Amino acid sequence: MYTLGVDVGSTTSKCMILKDGKEFVSSSIVAAGTGTNGPERALEEVIEKAPILEQDIAYIVATGYGRTSFKIANEEVSELTCHARGVHFTCPDVRTIIDIGGQDVKVLALNEKGRMLNFLMNDKCAAGTGRFLDVMANILQLNIQDLEKQAAKSSNPVRISNTCTVFAESEVISQLALGVKLPDLVAGICESVARRVGSLAKRIGIREKVYMSGGVAQNGGVRTALESFLETDIVFTKDAQLMGALGAALLAYDKANK
Amino acid sequence: MYTLGVDVGSTTSKCMILKDGKEFVSSSIVAAGTGTNGPERALEEVIEKAPILEQDIAYIVATGYGRTSFKIANEEVSELTCHARGVHFTCPDVRTIIDIGGQDVKVLALNEKGRMLNFLMNDKCAAGTGRFLDVMANILQLNIQDLEKQAAKSSNPVRISNTCTVFAESEVISQLALGVKLPDLVAGICESVARRVGSLAKRIGIREKVYMSGGVAQNGGVRTALESFLETDIVFTKDAQLMGALGAALLAYDKANK
Ligand code: SF4
Repeated sequence: MYTLGVDVGSTTSKCMILKDGKEFVSSSIVAAGTGTNGPERALEEVIEKAPILEQDIAYIVATGYGRTSFKIANEEVSELTCHARGVHFTCPDVRTIIDIGGQDVKVLALNEKGRMLNFLMNDKCAAGTGRFLDVMANILQLNIQDLEKQAAKSSNPVRISNTCTVFAESEVISQLALGVKLPDLVAGICESVARRVGSLAKRIGIREKVYMSGGVAQNGGVRTALESFLETDIVFTKDAQLMGALGAALLAYDKANK
Repeated sequence: MYTLGVDVGSTTSKCMILKDGKEFVSSSIVAAGTGTNGPERALEEVIEKAPILEQDIAYIVATGYGRTSFKIANEEVSELTCHARGVHFTCPDVRTIIDIGGQDVKVLALNEKGRMLNFLMNDKCAAGTGRFLDVMANILQLNIQDLEKQAAKSSNPVRISNTCTVFAESEVISQLALGVKLPDLVAGICESVARRVGSLAKRIGIREKVYMSGGVAQNGGVRTALESFLETDIVFTKDAQLMGALGAALLAYDKANK
């Protein structure tokens, strides 16, 4: 039996197809989120890759910020539930999930069964989110992917004193004008995200293992900065961006079997 | 006896010269703040306009965010104290001052003698500050001065749902793309500032009369929106931007007389 999980985020759309609720079949990530044709493109791609027919899918669960716009889903489930489920399936030892998305940050505390005990979220302020990194990459005329490489070259990260994205933007421009080296600036930017997100995570209490998901988890600069801010190792898997879609596909299997 | 008050803000520098602590002699406003030559230019201008010689000035008080950079001052006094003093001198009936500057928002509660009873400040977040309006004017390719005219033409202000400057920027861009009329968009932007600042003011408690100072007070669109949000009249004087410098010049007179 095939089930599909769809995660419609603010800036990306992710799909995953599972067989019998345990076997990975295919996945897709499209860099276009809610309000675009991203979800449809991600769906096409995941089916093509499988390859199966759409009617072979027994049950579809949609999750994520834009889940209500995905009309062909059998059911919608909150991203918190799906994330917790996906990460627990991938790494059963995880007790804390730090998810940094394009426009929000979530911290989830799980018990040993993968149930969510508590969560904290920031979706009101761009600081600490993927958007903060986008703004900074734009000023520095770098690709998001280049941030990691640049940060790795830094020996002396600059301290960005403003948390606010808008004020930090001016601060980075002044630092550039003062001749601060690019790697030190980028490392400082990663540390700024880590401080912001790490403070949220500390409010919930850090219990190991800590897993990092969401688009920004791809950025090793932020991961390293967060590890040192939280003084803990962070588990990261290459499919970190797909945890919501995976959880949705797993829940779809549960539902199809009821 | 001449005294000088200098208010070095984040985006503008203001000076005022008084005679005998009560008579207006001259003032200047230069659109360049701390870290620039704005303070020096404002000083030159205020002396030239007076006209007096620099050595005729008995005492100088500096205030504002960048006051420590103004080396020739005899003394530095916090902007809260100077604002309270300047506004009380101008309108003794005022009990609440709402000051919206280029990078911060302050709300001050005064007693009948003009003493500050309490205050609240936001200087961490660009939302609700002059910077928010700058960002929006920039997207809409308008001058800051045009915002007022545009807002006045609106019959149906758009509700901007994001408070965050960065997210609101994207929202305004989408609204523009959807064909929302410029006046309605600008009025919505003014309302967004009013909601943000007004909520801060309500936390301190609104006691009449309410006075609005700072650069953004010049913007009638924001003033009108704030009046309707707070359900109260707002006193505004053309010299609202000079209240800090006035208070500093008054305090300089007190000090010179001691
Ligand atoms: S602090 Fe800056 S980034 Fe955060 S809500 Fe305010 S304006 Fe937005």
